[in-house]
Amino acid sequence: MSTSAQKLSGVVPPLVTPLTPEYDIDTASLARLVEHQLAGGVSGVFVLGTSGEGTFLTDEQRQTVLETVVTEVAGQVPVLAGAIDTSTARAGAHISAALKAGVDAIVATAPFYAATHPLEIERHFTRLASVAGDTPLYAYDIPSRIAGTKLPAELMIKLGSQGILAGVKDSSGQDTSLRRLVLARADADLPGFAIMTGSELTVDCALGFGVDGVVPGLGNVDPAGYVRLFTAATPDLARDEQNRLFRLFEIVEAPDKTRMGPSSAALGAFKAALYVLGVLASPLTAYPSIPLNEHEIAQIAGLLERAGLR
Amino acid sequence: MSTSAQKLSGVVPPLVTPLTPEYDIDTASLARLVEHQLAGGVSGVFVLGTSGEGTFLTDEQRQTVLETVVTEVAGQVPVLAGAIDTSTARAGAHISAALKAGVDAIVATAPFYAATHPLEIERHFTRLASVAGDTPLYAYDIPSRIAGTKLPAELMIKLGSQGILAGVKDSSGQDTSLRRLVLARADADLPGFAIMTGSELTVDCALGFGVDGVVPGLGNVDPAGYVRLFTAATPDLARDEQNRLFRLFEIVEAPDKTRMGPSSAALGAFKAALYVLGVLASPLTAYPSIPLNEHEIAQIAGLLERAGLR
Amino acid sequence: MSTSAQKLSGVVPPLVTPLTPEYDIDTASLARLVEHQLAGGVSGVFVLGTSGEGTFLTDEQRQTVLETVVTEVAGQVPVLAGAIDTSTARAGAHISAALKAGVDAIVATAPFYAATHPLEIERHFTRLASVAGDTPLYAYDIPSRIAGTKLPAELMIKLGSQGILAGVKDSSGQDTSLRRLVLARADADLPGFAIMTGSELTVDCALGFGVDGVVPGLGNVDPAGYVRLFTAATPDLARDEQNRLFRLFEIVEAPDKTRMGPSSAALGAFKAALYVLGVLASPLTAYPSIPLNEHEIAQIAGLLERAGLR
Amino acid sequence: MSTSAQKLSGVVPPLVTPLTPEYDIDTASLARLVEHQLAGGVSGVFVLGTSGEGTFLTDEQRQTVLETVVTEVAGQVPVLAGAIDTSTARAGAHISAALKAGVDAIVATAPFYAATHPLEIERHFTRLASVAGDTPLYAYDIPSRIAGTKLPAELMIKLGSQGILAGVKDSSGQDTSLRRLVLARADADLPGFAIMTGSELTVDCALGFGVDGVVPGLGNVDPAGYVRLFTAATPDLARDEQNRLFRLFEIVEAPDKTRMGPSSAALGAFKAALYVLGVLASPLTAYPSIPLNEHEIAQIAGLLERAGLR
Repeated sequence: MSTSAQKLSGVVPPLVTPLTPEYDIDTASLARLVEHQLAGGVSGVFVLGTSGEGTFLTDEQRQTVLETVVTEVAGQVPVLAGAIDTSTARAGAHISAALKAGVDAIVATAPFYAATHPLEIERHFTRLASVAGDTPLYAYDIPSRIAGTKLPAELMIKLGSQGILAGVKDSSGQDTSLRRLVLARADADLPGFAIMTGSELTVDCALGFGVDGVVPGLGNVDPAGYVRLFTAATPDLARDEQNRLFRLFEIVEAPDKTRMGPSSAALGAFKAALYVLGVLASPLTAYPSIPLNEHEIAQIAGLLERAGLR
Repeated sequence: MSTSAQKLSGVVPPLVTPLTPEYDIDTASLARLVEHQLAGGVSGVFVLGTSGEGTFLTDEQRQTVLETVVTEVAGQVPVLAGAIDTSTARAGAHISAALKAGVDAIVATAPFYAATHPLEIERHFTRLASVAGDTPLYAYDIPSRIAGTKLPAELMIKLGSQGILAGVKDSSGQDTSLRRLVLARADADLPGFAIMTGSELTVDCALGFGVDGVVPGLGNVDPAGYVRLFTAATPDLARDEQNRLFRLFEIVEAPDKTRMGPSSAALGAFKAALYVLGVLASPLTAYPSIPLNEHEIAQIAGLLERAGLR
Repeated sequence: MSTSAQKLSGVVPPLVTPLTPEYDIDTASLARLVEHQLAGGVSGVFVLGTSGEGTFLTDEQRQTVLETVVTEVAGQVPVLAGAIDTSTARAGAHISAALKAGVDAIVATAPFYAATHPLEIERHFTRLASVAGDTPLYAYDIPSRIAGTKLPAELMIKLGSQGILAGVKDSSGQDTSLRRLVLARADADLPGFAIMTGSELTVDCALGFGVDGVVPGLGNVDPAGYVRLFTAATPDLARDEQNRLFRLFEIVEAPDKTRMGPSSAALGAFKAALYVLGVLASPLTAYPSIPLNEHEIAQIAGLLERAGLR
Repeated sequence: MSTSAQKLSGVVPPLVTPLTPEYDIDTASLARLVEHQLAGGVSGVFVLGTSGEGTFLTDEQRQTVLETVVTEVAGQVPVLAGAIDTSTARAGAHISAALKAGVDAIVATAPFYAATHPLEIERHFTRLASVAGDTPLYAYDIPSRIAGTKLPAELMIKLGSQGILAGVKDSSGQDTSLRRLVLARADADLPGFAIMTGSELTVDCALGFGVDGVVPGLGNVDPAGYVRLFTAATPDLARDEQNRLFRLFEIVEAPDKTRMGPSSAALGAFKAALYVLGVLASPLTAYPSIPLNEHEIAQIAGLLERAGLR
């Protein structure tokens, strides 16, 4: 990790991956999405994360995403790339590919499928950092997706102190443990260690107790809203903006969860909203996810209208 | 799936993947392991499964495993290959690679990392079956590893009736749902649908209520024991053999779980036992798993002696 | 615990508690239920357990149940009483009340609501045994109801060796851990320690590997079936009887689980079946459980007919 | 519920229950604890909750607690009483007893042990409210203790609109769902519905998005700190006070969790701190909880010193 790297902060949406009806990467829509984000004032973009359906894509598709976004962003903000896979070796291969594409930082989870111990997670990130070289590596804490494995705060801070991790993206949904991490960072006198929250519905709180920014899935749809929240002049204004975004998040309730999984529903809602807004040419989610139907998309359109977004 | 395919049954151990100290595939040890299995009288071998640390390996390493085993087995028994990955596209790529290597059947889980709905799982297996073509496809039910996703019995039977699935490997550890599957198979008059249990400690029970065979991790160490259990002349003899194997399974308690994960401990114990028995040249588990120490290996050696295996 | 106590075995159904439309104990129906059980050939009856809705009842209602059953059974088989409550003190009070009513044995869970450590569970049972005096005390292992607390096999055997526990009723649904308990009992040379399974759908298996009997909720409906299963001359006959009962258990699928909890559905189905059979005057479950409707009861009647029970 | 009842807000600590070495209620210590709270400026006290070990106590002990606290408080602030039990009937009996003792409000969970459906939870609270009569009834949301049962926001608001519930105490630890409840209250135009958080480590956040107060277990030890947090003039001051209390909460890490449960550890730490501070005559927790040892108590004393509390 480069010691000269600027600390990550602000709004860094985890970009969805637009798909054509044939399930190929829709690079034109992806370029529009990048433009939509930059116009919204984001501080960075994160590709091939959970929202980016990175674990669904082939290596070739991943490469297309990386190259398209790096080209479109053209250095205006940092591009972070997910390297989320079951093992150190496989995540390491994703890192190498992302570096070749010219990304600015890497985001990796603990290994999964096989359950791991903190000492094994430590070995994992240490090895990945050596693959990443000068490129900053962020740990991605998302226990709900990886059979409950939670990244311990002490380990994060230890790896931060050693220059192995540049920070953490916390999508654990556990604000108490997130706050513990913030306090542990202060105790360790490690101000350059970035702590970003992935909990998009309590961002005002997290900013209040000291996190540096947010990686909001809903930021795909309304980046400007999250930027207003991040830059709000007073806590009351931040709360009001968060409340507005909280209500906008109702779009994820539009899909019928008796016929699709919660991942498909949430991502499908984000993509459908971007489709309604004209950013994406198709609302399709990755195979085998069930697509939203016309009725569900119409409901989302209504919620966007209510939110003043169209 | 070929309709002429012979129904799977008997003892089909999920082979561990021997590694060199440099974390390369140790093909010589792998060949000895195949020989150890065939000498034990197994009905098939399953590579690149959970015990095979398939999710840890690179595509190149996976290929080496497939080719080595297919060559060593030389058609004496079927070779099943795991295609365990986060999405349909990625599992499909593993299937294509396995077919090229000449395996006899494929074993695939539901997608994971992203949570899926049964209708999405149905789409997943349907697509994978079209990739597999004439090669039989088995569903692998292992909710503990994939954030709780359980394969519904009705869906399994439906896909069996449609010729999409040739059977199920059940590692759910839920004998009630396994029995429900067996009864549902009878109701659907689908005798050619193979039901194999991965619960290696209650095999006598499962055989008693109608499963066709077992995929026992411990079978790496003692294939002959599982073959005796499978072919036992009376339920009492089966029970006694299962009880002996139940006690042998204590080897997985030897590793210190305060310093490694449960996966590393169990697989590490199997590999250490094979190392003690002279089958493997090294007990190493895949990176980043913590290796067993001398003390733990010595304990396992003692338990093998108690079991009369050395 | 009396050392002269005869070891528990066989079929010991956990009696449901019949209620009047005013939610009082229906003692006439309860007497008929006892008669139904004795006619079926059971080895004992267990009142105020999970099936008995013991945790729903007031102390006065509990006393009515105890007295009615003790009187009706009249010493023909042992009467076991549940002492299931949140703490040692409260379970102890239930034990005292049950002893006064003349029961033959006590069945108690670990404390719940507050999570406990095995050392605390040990203190709990030790204290309860001193309250129970000469009356045998059985531990009740039912983690699904008490936030996951599982009774460790080693602790059970230790308390058995010390004469504190007379046995265990295992409703964990984990046949591997149940078998571990059976093997640990053999290792400890503790043949008088009774191990009963509450997993009513895999009884043939459990009997095969050495448990002493079963506490089947479904035995309320078909005690004779469970007695045939217990006394079956061959494993094949036991399996066939278990399969028949497995299918009969489908009655619990009749209630609509979108409008009631799983407990209400299962108990409601048992009570509705007994109502259809003329044993109970009303199918009502304890307040605030949602009652089954006519349609659901009719479905259950059909399943009873299919099973040849009416 | 009385419509004239004043809305609950502010700091309402859930009082621990002091015990003598013989496990009787230590009324003198309890009186000192009330005094400690009133001196700290609390807005109310909550007895017989989770921190109060209400589920451990006999009915007689509960009565002693209720009477002692009502007498000591002498109307200076409202006294809330827990009615936490497995069923409607049993919780209803606790309510009747509490009303006789003269408490000002009731706090009740959903039924537990038996899993319940929202429609059954609705029946439960409706019945309890009729028992409570004019006395306000608060729902207590604490899924971790009751096998995961979560009180749905819509149901809470519905019961609030009907005058059945006066508010909710949320100890779910899920700040997103807590915020959803706050927004749903605004949507329903139900400003008199009190929402209190039991998450004592993120109170500044919760106050920021609109909860009315906090029920902090740690408030037993440092009520004045929580009052300062509640009345802080600016969000920054609130955050700093919360951070101080966050660090003070480390006292719950002092007990050795390899020899006691997490409940015993947390409550034991609170009681030990109050013992060190001279408020309680003994740090004993309810039987069968393992008591803290001298070493653990000394550690807690050190942490109190660090926090400037002694």
